[in-house]
Amino acid sequence: MTDRLRIGVAGLGTVGAGVIRLLAENADLLAWRCGRRIEVVAVSARDRRRDRGLDLAATRWHDDARALAADDAVDVVVELIGGEGGVALDLCRAAIKGGKSVVTANKALLAHHGTALAGAAEAAGVALAYEAAVAGGIPIVKALREGLAGNCVQGVYGILNGTCNYILTVMRDQGRDFADVLADAQRLGYAEADPAFDIDGVDSAHKLAILASLAFGTRIDFAAVHVEGIRRIDALDIRYARELGFHIKLLGIATASDDGDISQRVHPCMVSV
Amino acid sequence: MTDRLRIGVAGLGTVGAGVIRLLAENADLLAWRCGRRIEVVAVSARDRRRDRGLDLAATRWHDDARALAADDAVDVVVELIGGEGGVALDLCRAAIKGGKSVVTANKALLAHHGTALAGAAEAAGVALAYEAAVAGGIPIVKALREGLAGNCVQGVYGILNGTCNYILTVMRDQGRDFADVLADAQRLGYAEADPAFDIDGVDSAHKLAILASLAFGTRIDFAAVHVEGIRRIDALDIRYARELGFHIKLLGIATASDDGDISQRVHPCMVSV
Repeated sequence: MTDRLRIGVAGLGTVGAGVIRLLAENADLLAWRCGRRIEVVAVSARDRRRDRGLDLAATRWHDDARALAADDAVDVVVELIGGEGGVALDLCRAAIKGGKSVVTANKALLAHHGTALAGAAEAAGVALAYEAAVAGGIPIVKALREGLAGNCVQGVYGILNGTCNYILTVMRDQGRDFADVLADAQRLGYAEADPAFDIDGVDSAHKLAILASLAFGTRIDFAAVHVEGIRRIDALDIRYARELGFHIKLLGIATASDDGDISQRVHPCMVSV
Repeated sequence: MTDRLRIGVAGLGTVGAGVIRLLAENADLLAWRCGRRIEVVAVSARDRRRDRGLDLAATRWHDDARALAADDAVDVVVELIGGEGGVALDLCRAAIKGGKSVVTANKALLAHHGTALAGAAEAAGVALAYEAAVAGGIPIVKALREGLAGNCVQGVYGILNGTCNYILTVMRDQGRDFADVLADAQRLGYAEADPAFDIDGVDSAHKLAILASLAFGTRIDFAAVHVEGIRRIDALDIRYARELGFHIKLLGIATASDDGDISQRVHPCMVSV
């Protein structure tokens, strides 16, 4: 390991390219705060020719993300490929096994394989860091893991999906129907072309399973999450809720009973205005 | 250093006694989360005979808090005496010099001597931890120091004093005058017998100076905080504010300009309802 911290970034979509840009723009600030320069020395993505607005001329390129795990020039692998298995999982496993710390924003991967990956990281003496996997800009993972380590958490509640929250808010403010607002959100880039993960609550459930494991010190148990999305909410539901003094929000809710039983659920809720 | 982490607590007021009680009640949980048992092995307070509802028979007692710094049975000193100088400062200095980490909830001490103490701790290779000094139950210190280490913070805003917030809220909800509500708050134990530190904004200013230094990576500069409290707010101000759609709150506000100029101020603000 050199004095610099040498990063390999797998996946150059919006998030991956953004990470590289921010690490470069804030390089001096980060070096000052961390006591060490952080440099992206290698990347991996499927299409080498796409213009991402980044100058990668001096950066090592791997067509296969898995090769980052074996690249001796890389200290830490940042996995931003996505997907609950496949290349993302292969890469994380191989990097950890090879003694590299892993940073990932991949909640689907963590919801399904987080406990196994955390165990492997512990055994290998490396870090598995995933602050960006839940509530991006809010340091909730660190707050639960460390900041509240002295507390007994009884419940975690939150709006965990921006796409659903945007759709429900526009439906409410403009009195429009679900399908109509969804189509708009897709046009504007707020919803994916295949919106099922978001609107059916699966993305919220991934995040909730991660938060619950941190809050209660348990293994991630995604299969135990009751999941219901917002497809069946219509404008009339929202109007009636409002007349009663409530908004409809898609919440993730995890609670622990005094006996230690854990309940995890994602569903539309009435929240007082 | 033994396998256990051995704590010495200086100051057995409400907070000190509460810390000892919580460390005992949650001992197993904390040992599990930290990988190490945390035990209070020594204490110091002025009056040995006062009943604090604690069994201290097996705990070392020091009449002079400063003796905790020299007690070889203690790994970490927890300073809960209070006051911006005096015994609290002597104890923290001596403990750090002697190679012991220090935990303190003393915002006045930190506002005046925090930079010097942090420098001494860094030189001695020990920790100076003060999460409880600002916004007690909210892990804001860790969030600013570590969770947002990759961010450029432009401003910190907050209600930083519970006593003022309680007084302003009761004044608003019950249409009562300042002096009247303050007297009630003192009777109920929500305000100190000498309430000046709280109601004149000094306590908020201490906390703001600490938050600003964390947010902007600067030295604590308490002298630079503009401070105005809530003594001159009367029921009529609150009524008029409300007619305009605002509440009156005592806010701490720290902002950094693009040139790096830092502004810190505590004063009553109009906040939209």
